[in-house]
Amino acid sequence: MQDLDENTVTDATLAQMGTTPDPRLKQIMEAAVRHMHAFAREVDLTPSEWLTAIGFLTEVGKACTDIRQEFILLSDVLGLSAVVNALHDKKAAELGTQSSLLGPFFREGAAELPLGASIIANPSVPEIVLYGQVTDNDGRPLPNALVQVWQTDEHGLYDVQAHDDAHMDMRGNFRTDASGHYHFRTVRPLGYSIPMDGPVGRLVAQQGRHGMRPSHIHILITAEGHRELVTALYFGDDDHIASDTVFGVSNSLVVQSKADPESPIPGLRAVRYDFKMPRAADNDTGRVGADPASFKPAAE
Amino acid sequence: MQDLDENTVTDATLAQMGTTPDPRLKQIMEAAVRHMHAFAREVDLTPSEWLTAIGFLTEVGKACTDIRQEFILLSDVLGLSAVVNALHDKKAAELGTQSSLLGPFFREGAAELPLGASIIANPSVPEIVLYGQVTDNDGRPLPNALVQVWQTDEHGLYDVQAHDDAHMDMRGNFRTDASGHYHFRTVRPLGYSIPMDGPVGRLVAQQGRHGMRPSHIHILITAEGHRELVTALYFGDDDHIASDTVFGVSNSLVVQSKADPESPIPGLRAVRYDFKMPRAADNDTGRVGADPASFKPAAE
Repeated sequence: MQDLDENTVTDATLAQMGTTPDPRLKQIMEAAVRHMHAFAREVDLTPSEWLTAIGFLTEVGKACTDIRQEFILLSDVLGLSAVVNALHDKKAAELGTQSSLLGPFFREGAAELPLGASIIANPSVPEIVLYGQVTDNDGRPLPNALVQVWQTDEHGLYDVQAHDDAHMDMRGNFRTDASGHYHFRTVRPLGYSIPMDGPVGRLVAQQGRHGMRPSHIHILITAEGHRELVTALYFGDDDHIASDTVFGVSNSLVVQSKADPESPIPGLRAVRYDFKMPRAADNDTGRVGADPASFKPAAE
Repeated sequence: MQDLDENTVTDATLAQMGTTPDPRLKQIMEAAVRHMHAFAREVDLTPSEWLTAIGFLTEVGKACTDIRQEFILLSDVLGLSAVVNALHDKKAAELGTQSSLLGPFFREGAAELPLGASIIANPSVPEIVLYGQVTDNDGRPLPNALVQVWQTDEHGLYDVQAHDDAHMDMRGNFRTDASGHYHFRTVRPLGYSIPMDGPVGRLVAQQGRHGMRPSHIHILITAEGHRELVTALYFGDDDHIASDTVFGVSNSLVVQSKADPESPIPGLRAVRYDFKMPRAADNDTGRVGADPASFKPAAE
């Protein structure tokens, strides 16, 4: 037995975790412990600050529900989700459309709609059209690709915020046609504040940040033999396009609606966006985010 | 707006958090973000591993109750609590008795008992005596110091595990007499496993660790003008004295009960331990741990 100080306790922890049979779990936990201890030493973390952090994380856990994932929100506002997303993109066999965060508002089981349908039940503003083609990286059309879309309404609210939990709206699933094309009607979503009524929102407020995400439409595309694409399209005229609270915007994902004579639905402003699907490189999903209902803690 | 990669997103996050008015919060969160991102890059964290971590932390939060603090347990088994404890000891104006972790089983409001009383309601094994003197570092007695003690019973269970939540046992508060002496009766606690039925226990099992803490008695001493002392006494003949799952043991805190003619209660085996209280150096508490009931999430 040795007397441990703030440095040697790290060695003792790594030694005791050395029995981990799974090599990947061992690698991840060793790195987590090293970085966590180094963090505590760097800032000379005090017991009361440590206790504040324990209380904060406990609150984050308690704020998670079937329709809200506060830990994902925390990861998002601290840039960790964007790091994981970028690392995932680097591992692609080839680059296709850039990816973006799945976020905490994706939900499994949205309705499959016919091409041209609207995903908005009761729009109070003129609709727009989103259309384009899904191809592989060589431009070959991908028919029957599943295109899942979800977004806020014209007031900046997702369905779970605007309605009761069971009510799905502002989301829908489409299949590309024989030439890989898709099109559907929607409204230009309003940019919005992340939920500020929980512990993560309070942290963001304490940091003097605006907490806003620019207007965007989430897209998740699945096509056999290709890497699942998780991305979003961002409206370039939004005030917060350059200061997204969760660091999800890339230049290549910025769009603008306009009058478009080639649009499949004449008379509505349109956004055309073609998606390129890279070949499958690994079996790992690119979903940096999750349907909150998919978390079923055993402890409850 | 720039296109962010796995490195530049760290700079973007630090820049966005640069508006934090409180300098200490700014310093802590900047270091946390840098270390967290570096961790993710070092292990090349995948989206599905990230999601596993999100699910794990959510479960840890859900496992926290009025009598159980699973995040403190997580901090304990990862050695973080011991690091924070060691950093706190380093800041002392002078060294007194070494400190140890408060742990998650401390509870406010235990009964104040007369010197010589037993803290065990129904002992099934012979009692022992714990006695000694509380002094300052120069050996001057400290009368009327508050000595709070808590421990497991002879089966390795704390009161909240052995009884219902409201029932306090195996704990009590004493005041030193005019010469700084204290003495009380108890039983030798059994070493025990940390709670293995929650997410932290599952992690410890996945790491091939035994999850045991050696037999110990927790002590918290408060004396005016002196630094609060949070410590514990460990029984040296325990099988796990050198492999404590939460890294709390120090050589100077190891004790053994024995026949002792100087014991204030003859006929019982006794442990004598004198505590030295350092002068107060700062206002910060040394409680690396907390009464779970003190966490009252606003979100509930």
